[in-house]
Amino acid sequence: MSSEPNLELATLLVSCPDRRGIVAALSQVLSGHGANILDSDQHTDPHERVFFQRIRFDLSELLSDKLTLERSIGEVAGRFGMSYRLIYASKPKRVALFVSKHDHCFYDLLLRKKSGELACEFAIVISNHPDLEAVAAQFGVRFRHVPKTAANKSQAEDTELGLLSELGVDLIVLARYMQVLSSEFVTRAAVPIINIHHSFLPAFIGQKPYHQAHERGVKLVGATAHYATAELDQGPIIEQDVVRCSHRDSVEDLVRKGKDLEKVALARAVRAHLDDRVLVFGNKTVVFD
Amino acid sequence: MSSEPNLELATLLVSCPDRRGIVAALSQVLSGHGANILDSDQHTDPHERVFFQRIRFDLSELLSDKLTLERSIGEVAGRFGMSYRLIYASKPKRVALFVSKHDHCFYDLLLRKKSGELACEFAIVISNHPDLEAVAAQFGVRFRHVPKTAANKSQAEDTELGLLSELGVDLIVLARYMQVLSSEFVTRAAVPIINIHHSFLPAFIGQKPYHQAHERGVKLVGATAHYATAELDQGPIIEQDVVRCSHRDSVEDLVRKGKDLEKVALARAVRAHLDDRVLVFGNKTVVFD
Amino acid sequence: MSSEPNLELATLLVSCPDRRGIVAALSQVLSGHGANILDSDQHTDPHERVFFQRIRFDLSELLSDKLTLERSIGEVAGRFGMSYRLIYASKPKRVALFVSKHDHCFYDLLLRKKSGELACEFAIVISNHPDLEAVAAQFGVRFRHVPKTAANKSQAEDTELGLLSELGVDLIVLARYMQVLSSEFVTRAAVPIINIHHSFLPAFIGQKPYHQAHERGVKLVGATAHYATAELDQGPIIEQDVVRCSHRDSVEDLVRKGKDLEKVALARAVRAHLDDRVLVFGNKTVVFD
Amino acid sequence: MSSEPNLELATLLVSCPDRRGIVAALSQVLSGHGANILDSDQHTDPHERVFFQRIRFDLSELLSDKLTLERSIGEVAGRFGMSYRLIYASKPKRVALFVSKHDHCFYDLLLRKKSGELACEFAIVISNHPDLEAVAAQFGVRFRHVPKTAANKSQAEDTELGLLSELGVDLIVLARYMQVLSSEFVTRAAVPIINIHHSFLPAFIGQKPYHQAHERGVKLVGATAHYATAELDQGPIIEQDVVRCSHRDSVEDLVRKGKDLEKVALARAVRAHLDDRVLVFGNKTVVFD
Repeated sequence: MSSEPNLELATLLVSCPDRRGIVAALSQVLSGHGANILDSDQHTDPHERVFFQRIRFDLSELLSDKLTLERSIGEVAGRFGMSYRLIYASKPKRVALFVSKHDHCFYDLLLRKKSGELACEFAIVISNHPDLEAVAAQFGVRFRHVPKTAANKSQAEDTELGLLSELGVDLIVLARYMQVLSSEFVTRAAVPIINIHHSFLPAFIGQKPYHQAHERGVKLVGATAHYATAELDQGPIIEQDVVRCSHRDSVEDLVRKGKDLEKVALARAVRAHLDDRVLVFGNKTVVFD
Repeated sequence: MSSEPNLELATLLVSCPDRRGIVAALSQVLSGHGANILDSDQHTDPHERVFFQRIRFDLSELLSDKLTLERSIGEVAGRFGMSYRLIYASKPKRVALFVSKHDHCFYDLLLRKKSGELACEFAIVISNHPDLEAVAAQFGVRFRHVPKTAANKSQAEDTELGLLSELGVDLIVLARYMQVLSSEFVTRAAVPIINIHHSFLPAFIGQKPYHQAHERGVKLVGATAHYATAELDQGPIIEQDVVRCSHRDSVEDLVRKGKDLEKVALARAVRAHLDDRVLVFGNKTVVFD
Repeated sequence: MSSEPNLELATLLVSCPDRRGIVAALSQVLSGHGANILDSDQHTDPHERVFFQRIRFDLSELLSDKLTLERSIGEVAGRFGMSYRLIYASKPKRVALFVSKHDHCFYDLLLRKKSGELACEFAIVISNHPDLEAVAAQFGVRFRHVPKTAANKSQAEDTELGLLSELGVDLIVLARYMQVLSSEFVTRAAVPIINIHHSFLPAFIGQKPYHQAHERGVKLVGATAHYATAELDQGPIIEQDVVRCSHRDSVEDLVRKGKDLEKVALARAVRAHLDDRVLVFGNKTVVFD
Repeated sequence: MSSEPNLELATLLVSCPDRRGIVAALSQVLSGHGANILDSDQHTDPHERVFFQRIRFDLSELLSDKLTLERSIGEVAGRFGMSYRLIYASKPKRVALFVSKHDHCFYDLLLRKKSGELACEFAIVISNHPDLEAVAAQFGVRFRHVPKTAANKSQAEDTELGLLSELGVDLIVLARYMQVLSSEFVTRAAVPIINIHHSFLPAFIGQKPYHQAHERGVKLVGATAHYATAELDQGPIIEQDVVRCSHRDSVEDLVRKGKDLEKVALARAVRAHLDDRVLVFGNKTVVFD
C-alpha cells in the first residue's frame, strides 16, 4: 500500500440480508461521489442468506466531502438493513499487546511492525510479569506491568481498562498472554480482542494443549488465532495452521514446532484485522484475501 | 451450484486497462437489465495497470432478453477497451481427454465427473495407446485410439483436430498424455489445453522430472497444471502443489507420491477452468476463488 | 521392493522396556544366523521408558533355518521382556474392505492395489449396500452384501466374522463404512481394523463432522486414519492430513475437499500397516518411515 | 537433550559401501566398550549401494576410555572402508553468522539460540554492513564489520578467514548474506557453510528470485537451505519449504511471505546440522529425523 502514495484510501465493510441490487447500489453511491473502487470482494452465505462485501476505494478525487459521502452510504445502508463499518486508512489502528513471559509471538509482532508488515501503532504492552519490559524498550514501545492474582484480578482489569481507554486502543492482541480475561473485561473493553491458542481448535481447548496433543498421539499439531469472547477458546476463528509431527516428538518438540505456527497464525490474523479484511458473522469469520 | 435449481446462471469474465468507473459501469449495466449479481471478484495488476473481474449473475428475472443484455455489455466493453467472455451455465463445456498409458489422472477425472465435481461433458478420450479403452467404456465415454509415431505425427494430429472439431470440443485436458503436441496443433485446436506436468515448474522442465528431482536431491516434489502453449512446459500456470520427500525416497517413491499431487493439481485446474474462474494474462493466470 | 528380486525379506517389530544392550543383542542374533539387516529404525519413548525397533532383513543367505532363527529371537525376546512380531514378506496380508455407498476411498484403494502401491491381497469386499458390487467385479474382487439394521446387527456381524475367519483375513479396512462396529465385533475379529474418519480428530468426533466443522467456522478441514477400537473415533491415530478452507466453502465444498484427504490419509495408513511400519503403544502409534 | 543430565552423549556418523554385517559390527564395538546406544538411524542408497548410519550413544558408563573406543571404531571403519565422524556433545559447535542488512533470519536465529533451540555458540557475526551491530550487541554476540567491494573482496575474505580460524569456528551460516563467496573462500574456510536461498531450488537460481517467481506466475513460493559450494545455489539441499501464493501477491507480498519460509527452513537446517543429523553424499544430503 505504501506504493500508492497519493491515494486516500478507505474501506467499507458491509453485511446485510441478501437481496438483489446491493452490489449495484453500493458501487453507484461510491462512484457517484467520485470515490474510485480499487478492490471489491463479496460473499453470500447461501444458508443464512447473508451478504458480505468489502470495498476498498480511493477518496483523493472525491466530488463531495467525507461527511456527505458518509450520509449517502448511511442512506443505502438503511435501505438494505446493512451493518457496516467505514474505515479511513489515514488513521492507523492503535493496538495493545498483552504478554506474559513467552516472548516468541511478542518479538514476532514487534519485528513485523518494524519491517512494515503491520499497519498500526503499538500503543502499549501490558503484562502480568515484568520480564519483557526490556524487549519493549528496545523497540520503543511503552510497557506496563499489571500483576494479576486471583485476589486482585478485578482491580487489575480495571487498571488495564483504564489504560486502554486513555490510550484510545482499537485492538487488543493477546500474544500468549497466560491469563483468562473475565467476560466483564471482554464486554467493557468494547474493542476486538485477538488471541492465539496453541492448538487446532476445537481440539484441545483449555490448558496445556501440547500436552493434550501428545497424550492423544496426533500426527499434526496446530495453532488457532481467534477473536476472544466471554467463553474460553470458543470465539470466531480467523486463522489456523498445522505442522506435521510424529512419535519422535516429545511435548517439548511439539512446543517448539508449535511456536512457529503460533507466530505465523497470529501475525496473519492481526494483519487481516488491521487491513479490515475480517467480518464477524455469528461465531464465524469472513476473511477476505 | 446444484442447490440453486431455479437460477439461470451466467458468468462474465473481463480484463481491460485499469481506470476509474469500471466496477460501477458493469454492475450498473447488469442490474439495469434485471440480472442479479451473485458473486463478484476483481483484481488489479498494479504493475501492468490491468483490471480483471469475474461476475456471476442470475438471468432468471431478466427484464430484457439475452441479446439485448449482450449488446449492452458489448457497449460497455467497447467504451473501456475490455476483452471479455460471457458464458451461460446452461451449456456445459465439452471436454476431450488425451491419455496414454498412465491411468491415475484419467480415473481421477472420470470419478470426479461421476460424483458431480466437474460441470462438463466428456466428449471423447483420445489416446496414442489402446490400453485405456476398457476404462473409458466402463464410464461410458467414447474412446478413440490415434497411434502416433515420428513418421505419422502430423497426420495423427489432423485426425485429432478433425475429431475435436466434429465433436464441438471446448477444452482439451492432457491427463498424462506422453506426446508433445506440435505448435501447429496448439494453434489449430483453438481451444484451451490444460496439461499436468509432474514437477514444480519451472524446476525440472521436460523429460523424466522425478528422475531430475531425485538427482538434485530436493526435499519436496511438485506437480504443475498449466495451459499448454507452443513452448513446452512454459504456459501459464493454473495450479501447483508439493509434497515432502526425503533421502529415503527412491525415484519410484517420488513417482508414487507425485501421482497424488498430479491428480489433485490437475483436477483443481480443470475445475477452475470449467467454473470460468481463470483469466489468462500474458504468461500468467488470475484464478478467482 | 520389487526391485530386490532375489531377496527373502522379513520384518521384526519389537517393543520392550528400555534398557541397555537391546540394539546390540538383536543385531547380533540376526547377523549370527546369517540374516542381513537392510534397514533398522528405532525409537525410545523417554517418558514411558519403552523401546521400539523395526528391523527389515534378508533371509536368502541364512546360515540356519527359519525355525532356529525364530527360536533364537524368542530367546532374546524373553530375556528383554519384548513383545514382538516376525513377519515374512513372502506371505502378503489378506485384507477385507468394508464399504457402504461412498466410492472414493474404495476406488482409491482398488486403483493403488492395481498399480502396485499396496502389497496385499483383497480377500473380500463386505458392504451393507449392494451398490458397489459392480465396481468390485471390475477389479476382480469378491463382493458380499451383508445388510445391516438395528434388528439384525448382531447376526450380520456373525456373518461377517464367519467370512473373515473363513478367508483368513489379516486386516480390515473400513473405507467409509457407515456402520459402527460393535465392541464385540472388534474383539472377536481379532485382527487390526483401520478406519478413516472425516475430521481432524479429536475435533469433530462422531456424526457429520463436515457439518460440525462448517458450523464451527474452522479454516482447515482434516481426515484421520486410525485403528478402530471399541470406543468410537478414539483408537490410535496412524495418519492425519488437512486442507485449507474458507468462508466460501459450503458443507458440500468441505465434503469435496475432504474426500481427497480421506483417500490419501487412508491409503498412507494402510500402506504403512502393510509394510509393517506401525507399532501400537497404549493409545498411540509409532509409525516408522 | 537437556532432560538427560547425567548422560555423556556422542554421535557417530558413518557412510561406506553397502555390505552385510555393518550394523552388527558397529553395534558390537559400541556395546563392547560399554557405550549405550540411545538412537540409531540408517539408510541405504540402493542405486549407489552406499550405507549411512547415525548412532547416538551414551558414554557415561564406558568400560574403557574415549581413546580406546576411538581406536576400535577406527578399526571397524578401516575394515568396512567407512568415512565417519565421531562428535562429542560436550563440545558445542562454534558458529559464525554472516549477515548484510536483512534482519529477519538473523533475529530468528538469535531468538532460537536464546530459547534453547540451537545447541551451539555464536562465535561472531560478520557483516559487510554496520547496520545490525546493535542487534548483535543486544544479544551479546561479537560483531565485526568487514566491508566488501569488488576491489577489496579478496582482502576482505582474508580478514574473514583470519577471524574464523582465530575463533575456532565449526560452521558458517549465511543468514541472508548478500555477497557471493569466492570458491577460494569456500575451500579455505574448510568448514560447512549453510546458506538460505529465497526460492524453491533449482527454480529461480541467482539474483532476485521473488521477482523471477512473480514474473513466471507460480502458485507457490519457496525457500531452500543448502550447503554452499563453489558453484552458486548448487550445493546439497538440506531443507525446503513452500507457501501458497496467488495473482493477488505482488513481489512485495512474495518477499513478505517468503521471509517466514526463509526463517523456518534455515533454522531447521542449522538445527539438523548442529544435531549431527546431516550426511552429505555426492550433491545430496541424508537428513536423519
